[in-house]
Amino acid sequence: MAAEIPKMQWAQVIEKTGGPVEYKQIPVQQPGPDEVLVNIKYSGVCHTDLHAVNGDWPLPTKLPLVGGHEGAGVVVARGELVKDVEIGDHAGVKWLNGSCLACDFCQQADEPLCGKALLSGYTVDGSFQQYCIAKAAHVARIPKDVPLDAIAPVLCAGITVYKGLKESGARPGQTVAIVGAGGGLGSLAQQYARAMGLRVIAIDTGDEKKKMCLEQLGAESFVDFMKSSNVVKDVQAATQDGLGPHAVILVAVNEKPFQQAAEYVRPRGTVICIGLPAGAYLKAPVFDSVIKMITIKGSYVGNRKDSAEAIEFYRRGVIKSPFKVVGLSELQMVYDKMIRGEIAGRYVLDTSK
Amino acid sequence: MAAEIPKMQWAQVIEKTGGPVEYKQIPVQQPGPDEVLVNIKYSGVCHTDLHAVNGDWPLPTKLPLVGGHEGAGVVVARGELVKDVEIGDHAGVKWLNGSCLACDFCQQADEPLCGKALLSGYTVDGSFQQYCIAKAAHVARIPKDVPLDAIAPVLCAGITVYKGLKESGARPGQTVAIVGAGGGLGSLAQQYARAMGLRVIAIDTGDEKKKMCLEQLGAESFVDFMKSSNVVKDVQAATQDGLGPHAVILVAVNEKPFQQAAEYVRPRGTVICIGLPAGAYLKAPVFDSVIKMITIKGSYVGNRKDSAEAIEFYRRGVIKSPFKVVGLSELQMVYDKMIRGEIAGRYVLDTSK
Amino acid sequence: MAAEIPKMQWAQVIEKTGGPVEYKQIPVQQPGPDEVLVNIKYSGVCHTDLHAVNGDWPLPTKLPLVGGHEGAGVVVARGELVKDVEIGDHAGVKWLNGSCLACDFCQQADEPLCGKALLSGYTVDGSFQQYCIAKAAHVARIPKDVPLDAIAPVLCAGITVYKGLKESGARPGQTVAIVGAGGGLGSLAQQYARAMGLRVIAIDTGDEKKKMCLEQLGAESFVDFMKSSNVVKDVQAATQDGLGPHAVILVAVNEKPFQQAAEYVRPRGTVICIGLPAGAYLKAPVFDSVIKMITIKGSYVGNRKDSAEAIEFYRRGVIKSPFKVVGLSELQMVYDKMIRGEIAGRYVLDTSK
Amino acid sequence: MAAEIPKMQWAQVIEKTGGPVEYKQIPVQQPGPDEVLVNIKYSGVCHTDLHAVNGDWPLPTKLPLVGGHEGAGVVVARGELVKDVEIGDHAGVKWLNGSCLACDFCQQADEPLCGKALLSGYTVDGSFQQYCIAKAAHVARIPKDVPLDAIAPVLCAGITVYKGLKESGARPGQTVAIVGAGGGLGSLAQQYARAMGLRVIAIDTGDEKKKMCLEQLGAESFVDFMKSSNVVKDVQAATQDGLGPHAVILVAVNEKPFQQAAEYVRPRGTVICIGLPAGAYLKAPVFDSVIKMITIKGSYVGNRKDSAEAIEFYRRGVIKSPFKVVGLSELQMVYDKMIRGEIAGRYVLDTSK
Repeated sequence: MAAEIPKMQWAQVIEKTGGPVEYKQIPVQQPGPDEVLVNIKYSGVCHTDLHAVNGDWPLPTKLPLVGGHEGAGVVVARGELVKDVEIGDHAGVKWLNGSCLACDFCQQADEPLCGKALLSGYTVDGSFQQYCIAKAAHVARIPKDVPLDAIAPVLCAGITVYKGLKESGARPGQTVAIVGAGGGLGSLAQQYARAMGLRVIAIDTGDEKKKMCLEQLGAESFVDFMKSSNVVKDVQAATQDGLGPHAVILVAVNEKPFQQAAEYVRPRGTVICIGLPAGAYLKAPVFDSVIKMITIKGSYVGNRKDSAEAIEFYRRGVIKSPFKVVGLSELQMVYDKMIRGEIAGRYVLDTSK
Repeated sequence: MAAEIPKMQWAQVIEKTGGPVEYKQIPVQQPGPDEVLVNIKYSGVCHTDLHAVNGDWPLPTKLPLVGGHEGAGVVVARGELVKDVEIGDHAGVKWLNGSCLACDFCQQADEPLCGKALLSGYTVDGSFQQYCIAKAAHVARIPKDVPLDAIAPVLCAGITVYKGLKESGARPGQTVAIVGAGGGLGSLAQQYARAMGLRVIAIDTGDEKKKMCLEQLGAESFVDFMKSSNVVKDVQAATQDGLGPHAVILVAVNEKPFQQAAEYVRPRGTVICIGLPAGAYLKAPVFDSVIKMITIKGSYVGNRKDSAEAIEFYRRGVIKSPFKVVGLSELQMVYDKMIRGEIAGRYVLDTSK
Repeated sequence: MAAEIPKMQWAQVIEKTGGPVEYKQIPVQQPGPDEVLVNIKYSGVCHTDLHAVNGDWPLPTKLPLVGGHEGAGVVVARGELVKDVEIGDHAGVKWLNGSCLACDFCQQADEPLCGKALLSGYTVDGSFQQYCIAKAAHVARIPKDVPLDAIAPVLCAGITVYKGLKESGARPGQTVAIVGAGGGLGSLAQQYARAMGLRVIAIDTGDEKKKMCLEQLGAESFVDFMKSSNVVKDVQAATQDGLGPHAVILVAVNEKPFQQAAEYVRPRGTVICIGLPAGAYLKAPVFDSVIKMITIKGSYVGNRKDSAEAIEFYRRGVIKSPFKVVGLSELQMVYDKMIRGEIAGRYVLDTSK
Repeated sequence: MAAEIPKMQWAQVIEKTGGPVEYKQIPVQQPGPDEVLVNIKYSGVCHTDLHAVNGDWPLPTKLPLVGGHEGAGVVVARGELVKDVEIGDHAGVKWLNGSCLACDFCQQADEPLCGKALLSGYTVDGSFQQYCIAKAAHVARIPKDVPLDAIAPVLCAGITVYKGLKESGARPGQTVAIVGAGGGLGSLAQQYARAMGLRVIAIDTGDEKKKMCLEQLGAESFVDFMKSSNVVKDVQAATQDGLGPHAVILVAVNEKPFQQAAEYVRPRGTVICIGLPAGAYLKAPVFDSVIKMITIKGSYVGNRKDSAEAIEFYRRGVIKSPFKVVGLSELQMVYDKMIRGEIAGRYVLDTSK
């Protein structure tokens, strides 16, 4: 029934911090009692994977390390305690590979805050291999009518922006500004926002991005932060009553956009910070923040429920995520492009090549 | 029935920004159709009043100005539309003297955010006079079993800290750290927190304050920020599981305490900023804020419902607020003490002297 | 500038409970200091208006009475205190004509629960006349790009279903069952639900309604309660995981549909009751309600913010509401059709005829 | 170090529905990989245990069955996957023995709604034995400064009323009416309410209960439903503004008290139903429920976080729960008293006798 599981497999391995990644054969692992073994078919490549290679975040990685945390594939083995995932099910390996499911944070459905969280491609081996271990309670359930290559990038980028939008507290009919709207996360954020009944102000730069945001991604207005002589004023003017958007989603937090966001957000509004530039700071004037009663909130990755919801939006066909498939063996080339800032959309690796 | 209303009254008047205040006789005003005239018996003196004299906030005052926004007294006249306030009722004149009651913010019970808000002792004349005008819909209803001198400081300081605690989202049984716990706002904050079922970590300095916080104000622990070699660690250690308080209330936001708060607050916790030091900035590292999913929130004054609730806590006897009464004529002396940082507790002015 | 205001006007008047309505000339009133006078151009006719004629609700009406609470028109006069509504503005007269704006409920933005609420066409004269008085703080602000005839039915039916959907707590991506989906309220509810990012199971009967719900109103599935041999099972089967909808909106509460709703709603789900059949009861088994932790909630009309939001959805073009215009003089004919159950969509009265 | 685990143990066993319970020796089980073995020292006896014996709920029990779900003891063995419970830890076996931790409900921290939930003393063997198996992720963590006999009844009764109070949404300073205030659940509910900053109206009958509620349990007022000529009016009169309590907790839902609750609860208030009388119905008039926008909500047992919080309130010394200790061998005697309605407070079984 199930295909035979080989003893050895292809993987991309980092031996020491700083890289490089090496494409080679390594042994296939056996799942523990509460784990599954997923035959990864496709894996997205995320900017975080590059941070893992470079080791520039204040959190050490496992070494040697198989990176990757946007893996989509088929369950081929499971431990004795696993009852609700079947051999043959489609499953996703996400950033959150596992958590204790019993601490104060897990108890309140904040698994990403678990002190014992296992992080795919960071503190445990991830999806840049053909057979990946993950905690059964944490693998994403992927319906069989969803293509495995297309869903891969949703498993991190999609879930993360969806989570940010939920955390913003913006309600259907309200307006959200998305800063960095034309990038990979921003494109997804616009589509999720729209599917959630929100109205979008896209903030980015360039006519090509403007066209894409307004014509394909569902934004109602576009503010070009390079061309605008007063971004704060222009963003506020893009709202129905001129009082500013109810929420702002910063998909890559830099200091200037953050300070502007705190200025143009509506009184009682929320600024959501996603994305983790090394060394950056949030900074906002106390007086205005208090008088306007604004909220500034960090949003990390989604929990399991956010993940299931984000995937279901995709399954319903309301989210499109452009991607390009190359072989697993070509990972270094993808990193090189990433470093040079040459990637539009998401690269997805085919683990069979 | 009602005492006769005089034509002239005593007041403390600022003729030009920078002061001084002048104690003199001015005419008594007539209430408009939706207003009441309150015979102020007592008025608290707040730090904000000094900002109004000095004009050091980015918001201009009315001139000439009668300051004061913690006025407690008796309604002596009302406009034709006023139906739910009776002559003889006890009423409080708060910072929020009036608002449009119809804009988007008023509609969602965020009257303090109303663009047309009238601010007592700032954009309209306030409570440093014997007869003060206020919008009937906004005057605080004061039950007759509450002493007018004692309730005066609650009308601003009490409401403000109560609002901050509500905004924090901390639930009964959870822990809140109060920074500046030994000051006027901090003392009230501790008592409200306790009455709301919260557990308190008091943060301040000095043995006298420590004793007061632990023995009189209900704190469970005290961290002396001058003596502690590691405030972040000590505050976290003061919580049951060492993960830090669920919320932090900063009653006077300075940069260092703010950054520490962002560090020791529990993941998913909230840092509430109250207080308006001119020119200060919030600053927090993006990485930690995102990973911990913390919330930073400005909290301004309470709305009408917060006000009624804060007063009701006081009426039930669960809040004590030490104060000292002097004559209205002695306002300059109070300001002088305030400038020299010599005030413990609150000064309350008796308008009959 | 403003058109001259006549002394007399045409109106539909009920002299005594039980009717009939009489089409005749009555004097035009003057607005009070906090009121506006609206030249009603169009008014929708609601089932509630018939209850007002019949007096079959446990709440007495004013007599003689001008009914109507879905009036859309132009402001022609205003009282001295009114600052944020201009002569010439378009405005809507809703069920909630006014409220005290100061009680505990008004303070928390629950104006519909105000003990002193004024109800248009019920406790004060309503929109079945050419010139209607309303409290300025309560008239709906209607943007000028919205046709006054089309918006009329939204002012009650639209706001009410939108409010019910908000009260349900259903989030974008979740599923809501709408019982009575093919009727006037149900049709609007489906469209609002969809615009709010919700997924809809329409429950009603007949192939025509089925077609309309699935093809025009955005429902994803339809359960015919007459043809289904097991409504509970069929509704649950219409959800992705078979566990039932997250919320149920009962636009006309009868006992059987209510009990079924309590059965098929998802654990932790919410059943919202809208609509006021005289003498009906909610009834649900304690055991199942507790074990499933379900919520049953009554939802009345919207507050002012709900109203503004519901109108804004309409303005954006995402809601269609079929209606038919006849003259104000033909009101009795509309009632006759209503009594005979012959109305599909909404009748709107043109007050000029 | 750890005491030796015997092969056989004493237990109270039900062989067939209807009883009786038989005190006899049975084998001690081994924990599975994700389970712990708890040496039960004390176990409370709950009304639910009697339902399990009688089989009068619409949910079948395991047979033969060891009842009990308020077990407090010491962990003596654990499975290989268990990392966060140590041998020697104090732990509680609750109604919710285990759940899948992966379904939609578990993912949102609603473990009690899990379709695969294991129920102690009902679908799996419970705490009326000396050595009981439970899922490690679900056992309550009991701090060592908490006496094991005293905490036993808190593990079901305490958690359940605390959960009900949380579900009510009542905020500190608001008023909650507790119906059945003088009983076991009611006594605990009053104390939790008070510790949560809520104000309590106790509803029950008899002067002894009145005295206990007002003098020991912290109620501010008492309404005797037998002596009152108008319970609805009297309960409303017991609130500060006469508008009724913000929430009502029905610890044993019968039809009459339920209907009264729906009448006296404040508009926008919430009626929480706890307790599971076989065959009872909720019934409320549609008109009033809608006009007042009231919420009726079933509240089942707490999740793991509720449990930890409820225990922590107890640990802090703010909750007292009177109980009487007898031997495990005397269980039938306790049931007999329960059937005759002779129990005040809780019986706790000492498993060593």
